[in-house]
Amino acid sequence: MADLERIAHVADLVAARAAKGEHLAVVVSAMAGETNKLVGYARGAAGEALISDGFDDEYDVVVSSGEQVTAGLLALALRRRGLKARSWLGWQLELRTNPSHGRARILGFEESGLPEAVDSGEIAVVAGFQGVTEDRRISTLGRGGSDTSAVAVAAALNADCCDIYTDVDGVYTTDPRIVSKARRIERISYEEMLEMASLGAKVLQTRSVELAMNHNVPVRVLSSFLPPDAPNPGTLVCSEDEILEKQVVSGVAYSRDEAKVTLFGVADRPGVSARIFSLLAAKGVNVDMIVQANARGDKQANMVFTCTDRDSQIAREALSAHQKEIEFERLEVNRDVAKVSIIGVGMKSHTGVAETMFRALYEKGINIDVISTSEIKISVLIEAAYTELAVRALHTAFDLDAA
Amino acid sequence: MADLERIAHVADLVAARAAKGEHLAVVVSAMAGETNKLVGYARGAAGEALISDGFDDEYDVVVSSGEQVTAGLLALALRRRGLKARSWLGWQLELRTNPSHGRARILGFEESGLPEAVDSGEIAVVAGFQGVTEDRRISTLGRGGSDTSAVAVAAALNADCCDIYTDVDGVYTTDPRIVSKARRIERISYEEMLEMASLGAKVLQTRSVELAMNHNVPVRVLSSFLPPDAPNPGTLVCSEDEILEKQVVSGVAYSRDEAKVTLFGVADRPGVSARIFSLLAAKGVNVDMIVQANARGDKQANMVFTCTDRDSQIAREALSAHQKEIEFERLEVNRDVAKVSIIGVGMKSHTGVAETMFRALYEKGINIDVISTSEIKISVLIEAAYTELAVRALHTAFDLDAA
Repeated sequence: MADLERIAHVADLVAARAAKGEHLAVVVSAMAGETNKLVGYARGAAGEALISDGFDDEYDVVVSSGEQVTAGLLALALRRRGLKARSWLGWQLELRTNPSHGRARILGFEESGLPEAVDSGEIAVVAGFQGVTEDRRISTLGRGGSDTSAVAVAAALNADCCDIYTDVDGVYTTDPRIVSKARRIERISYEEMLEMASLGAKVLQTRSVELAMNHNVPVRVLSSFLPPDAPNPGTLVCSEDEILEKQVVSGVAYSRDEAKVTLFGVADRPGVSARIFSLLAAKGVNVDMIVQANARGDKQANMVFTCTDRDSQIAREALSAHQKEIEFERLEVNRDVAKVSIIGVGMKSHTGVAETMFRALYEKGINIDVISTSEIKISVLIEAAYTELAVRALHTAFDLDAA
Repeated sequence: MADLERIAHVADLVAARAAKGEHLAVVVSAMAGETNKLVGYARGAAGEALISDGFDDEYDVVVSSGEQVTAGLLALALRRRGLKARSWLGWQLELRTNPSHGRARILGFEESGLPEAVDSGEIAVVAGFQGVTEDRRISTLGRGGSDTSAVAVAAALNADCCDIYTDVDGVYTTDPRIVSKARRIERISYEEMLEMASLGAKVLQTRSVELAMNHNVPVRVLSSFLPPDAPNPGTLVCSEDEILEKQVVSGVAYSRDEAKVTLFGVADRPGVSARIFSLLAAKGVNVDMIVQANARGDKQANMVFTCTDRDSQIAREALSAHQKEIEFERLEVNRDVAKVSIIGVGMKSHTGVAETMFRALYEKGINIDVISTSEIKISVLIEAAYTELAVRALHTAFDLDAA
């Protein structure tokens, strides 16, 4: 939310839906810029030691106040419109989380009175992004946690649907800034959305999609900028069964925040891979694609993996420090790469999808470096300069362009 | 508190005291300007109806976040200095209040773990100004409520002393802006401080002094601007028994926010006064001094009372609307008045105090309009233009000028 005008707009949206007799719980995030300001304060007060030294419970006390303010203000704005409404903070909701402050995970809800209040017709204005730990300290769910809060509240209330108002009017087949013919998707399965989110489409937080899938809560992604009476169909994220017209490929995603790490001349002995990846895991490096290739015959191999740009620096330091122990000749980091992916539940039952993908890229002269696949997606690592070209080629090849 | 620098300064003050082995609970207010900003937001969202229509619970949700942020930041700053510290919000403290949102009164504390935490040597950083109602809503104590929180926490912890760090270095015999020879008072009794506060000296909130008196908590008013190692004796507010050298008059207070309302030709019948003052009470007008004088003999009298400038407008409207019913001839409001008071527990056992006061004013040609007295104070209403002259004359007459 941006400011008081945005709050008034949201109050109008909510009022229009309440007028239809809907029972509503509204989950809010902080006003624009507030969270960054509060994070800045916390870092200023705590110094560098923040987070690494377990300072995070107080960090959450500071940062959670942003949503608290918005929740109170929206409740006031709704009452001004003659509606019954009240705010609910994390500790009032009894939204219990684990004690991983700053990035807590939801454990569940305790008795709070929320369902009864919503049943009675009072609009619940829930402060998103926050919960409470077993020992009654405020916790926050990490950036984007308001989506996750919304899904959790919807699940707890057995809501018909969880509508997430965002700055876009739905989920698109790909990034419309790259492909002008990108189309809004009417319906997409949880699994596809999960892949889209983890592959770089930033509409919904991965964790919120997981939670929706686990509790089978339909999630609708809508625009928060349209007037209350404008058509606003958005995109429904739901279970695969509820999607009648299944696309072979539903979307094309890309990520530029990729780096390729190559270890040359790795001793080809049992346990070497385990040593490499347990070291990386210990340093918190999230490894994505992995390829091992025998380069010179028997005794040595090259090991390739990808991770985020930032993680690649950590990986470089960690591996270099243990070069003797791991036994490799040389390490190379290539940050000039991008990952392009196609996603679709239809892949499960269709053959030739990979072939179509590779041919489309080949025809544009794009070289594929690394490939990884899952049941519903194929990702390729390519040279970063070819990102947009690849996305456009794939969008056309899989008939996703709007008429 | 002003900003991060102020928080760092307070953290240094607290750290210096913790280094002496003191067990500490620190009550904080919001950063400078924050409360006003939040009140502005709340009024913007709620519109005019705020407060009058019972919107106040959400107002408190918004406004209380200011102290929440400071508490978290100070806890972080203390940890950065290697100290054990944690923040306590109103609902975590279980500081129970009545449900008069925006101006709640403290009822007491429920079991919270606070005393045990402080006993263990952990510094408690308490968000001031806030509590929680029986039905788990956030409440605020009204402007200046942080002082009251501090005294309440000190009482709950059986603390040796409640130190209140302010923007002045103590309580003065009078306003140093008017009398350059005003002296810092070493010790002052609760009763005197209460009169000083309610007569216009803005160092401590009246309610906090009442609470300190009821629980016999010594309160020390100190400067928050001095370095941690500088002498900072301040003023001790304590019970009369602990003050050995009792002054006849301890201080001179004044208030310019006064108005005099005169009702001319009031019917001199039983029940008329009751009707007037019950009407004013119903409108929330706080009446201070009252004088009834028979002006023309038997059947009619003039009724004079004083109240704040703002209340005088409400009184004028309310009384004018009921002129027939109350039966008075004419109403006059004089806003060009001020109240000057002398305060001192010594008055109880000394005679001639009033005489000294009236003579000092007479010698400067100052006319006394209305007089009111209590056991430990004498107040006079005078023409506003003479305020400073009167304060200076009285300060000298009662030997309060510094050498």
